[in-house]
Amino acid sequence: MFDPEQTFSDRNVLITGGIGFIGANLARRLLNLGARITLIDSMVPEYGGNLFNLAGVEDRLTVNVSDVRDAHAMTHLVRGQDYLFNLAGQTSHVDSMEDPFTDLDINCRSQLSILETCRHHNPDVKIVFASTRQIYGRPDYLPVDERHLLRPVDVNGVNKMAGEWYHILYNNVYGIRACALRLTNTYGPRMRVRDARQTFLGVWIRLLVEARPFEVWGGRQKRDYTYVDDAVDAFLRAAANDAANGKIYNLGGDRVVSLEETAEIMINANGGGDFTVREFPEDRKRIDIGDYYADDAAIREAIGWEPKVSLEEGFEHTLSYYRECLGHYV
Amino acid sequence: MFDPEQTFSDRNVLITGGIGFIGANLARRLLNLGARITLIDSMVPEYGGNLFNLAGVEDRLTVNVSDVRDAHAMTHLVRGQDYLFNLAGQTSHVDSMEDPFTDLDINCRSQLSILETCRHHNPDVKIVFASTRQIYGRPDYLPVDERHLLRPVDVNGVNKMAGEWYHILYNNVYGIRACALRLTNTYGPRMRVRDARQTFLGVWIRLLVEARPFEVWGGRQKRDYTYVDDAVDAFLRAAANDAANGKIYNLGGDRVVSLEETAEIMINANGGGDFTVREFPEDRKRIDIGDYYADDAAIREAIGWEPKVSLEEGFEHTLSYYRECLGHYV
Repeated sequence: MFDPEQTFSDRNVLITGGIGFIGANLARRLLNLGARITLIDSMVPEYGGNLFNLAGVEDRLTVNVSDVRDAHAMTHLVRGQDYLFNLAGQTSHVDSMEDPFTDLDINCRSQLSILETCRHHNPDVKIVFASTRQIYGRPDYLPVDERHLLRPVDVNGVNKMAGEWYHILYNNVYGIRACALRLTNTYGPRMRVRDARQTFLGVWIRLLVEARPFEVWGGRQKRDYTYVDDAVDAFLRAAANDAANGKIYNLGGDRVVSLEETAEIMINANGGGDFTVREFPEDRKRIDIGDYYADDAAIREAIGWEPKVSLEEGFEHTLSYYRECLGHYV
Repeated sequence: MFDPEQTFSDRNVLITGGIGFIGANLARRLLNLGARITLIDSMVPEYGGNLFNLAGVEDRLTVNVSDVRDAHAMTHLVRGQDYLFNLAGQTSHVDSMEDPFTDLDINCRSQLSILETCRHHNPDVKIVFASTRQIYGRPDYLPVDERHLLRPVDVNGVNKMAGEWYHILYNNVYGIRACALRLTNTYGPRMRVRDARQTFLGVWIRLLVEARPFEVWGGRQKRDYTYVDDAVDAFLRAAANDAANGKIYNLGGDRVVSLEETAEIMINANGGGDFTVREFPEDRKRIDIGDYYADDAAIREAIGWEPKVSLEEGFEHTLSYYRECLGHYV
């Protein structure tokens, strides 16, 4: 049985990208479990860091504003940690195409640097890396399991693929316990809603809360979504369970829906709202991946994870959060 | 029909890693086909560059000693080229583990930089990238086709995987025609024989020519081998044929043999010699991949490539070359 309190109480936990969407939710959960938490975040404006994500808990954890590209800072911060949740990353595929070297530095070089730092200064740490379903590219078959080939469709995908494999490699060669979760569209309170850099859902939520219509591109593509509390639960289980070491797991959602159905569920959860369906923009067609949804049987079987929050419930929580706090996110 | 002379005569060809083993053989072949050739090589001592590889042809081509990490030099050199054979790389897995950031700079960052340079300054160039079977890791099944998952076992493998995918990505997104060949053990005249940084075969050949016994680690692992003239033919065909654009092809050899059989064939080709079989060293076991041999049906079908040189014939050519020229390689 997974007893999160026993696992994380009084343990030292480092979260990179810790002031971002998933990192901050993870930190809040870990605080409730009694962990001693240090967050690293670069606070680069285009990325996910937002100090409001820590509202009310700032004094109960250590915030270290620094960049995972800063090897010296990382060396200091990694020492003595029991768990490292490695969530820092550049997530925008548009940004990765416009500035591929910054994406490489963050998603590729810094990951290697973090692992080298752990190897030299804290080889007993357990690492969980936030990877992404984006690296599969356009699926050959559905649902996509972990045996599907990786065919990234943007620079971000190539670099995330490399970043993921550095982790698996350091587990296999050096015995630094590490695993990777391939996240699908993750949503919930504290997500970036200012723009689509994390997921299109962010912009939809913002516009709904502002009582403005949002756009659905295409509409028939199928997707799955993980509510952030479920994603956090997967990170905790992967950290706690050595069966996950060296493994890569897909995360899925409670069910598969088309983009248009997603929009309708969201509008119902909001109690109203409008959207228009428009054709997929020409410049995005080359990187459009069509339908995607995950086979997440592997993580269910190996470490007992399952998504528990329905889309309806998740959207209600999320919309309710942003009705109250939107001003801190736009 | 593939008419190499018609394809390459009077065309401008750039070869990165052009003073190395495969690059120099490729350059010599292209000279005979009437191409105008520029070679780039960093001449880093641990890598493959050896000016003797150009003996007798130095005056018929342009040699530019520079590093693919030098973006300014590359910008100048890429302009006006019809074909780019992109062979520069760090190939040693030991070096990649000891100095992972240098491997990343060469095999990852520089590849992205070369592609960005082509995108901005010569988007019509056709690129063939030298990838490696190493990125498959330990095979799930044999022979290994291109649908096999990539599970690199060293930093070099992760970076080569990324380098390969940048090429496919730039083909797919920007229409810069590019493809990748996953080379297996390639051997022949001008290979590095000073050490095992390119392949264990190099050291075997050197020791045989020096009339000293060589060591076979393990012995029962199965392998395939490509003679360098056959590898060169694959590069030329892949460059000439637009059916290869965006594709990744395995190269195989004339047949599959165990390491011990390989050693025996080599000794027969040499007319004598000795080897001892020893256990796989402990520190290498973690990255030992067991048996590997390629399914190369895809490249055979798509662009009509096939290996033509038998192991016996290939080893004879190679040994004969090093009996004459070993002094230039050790």
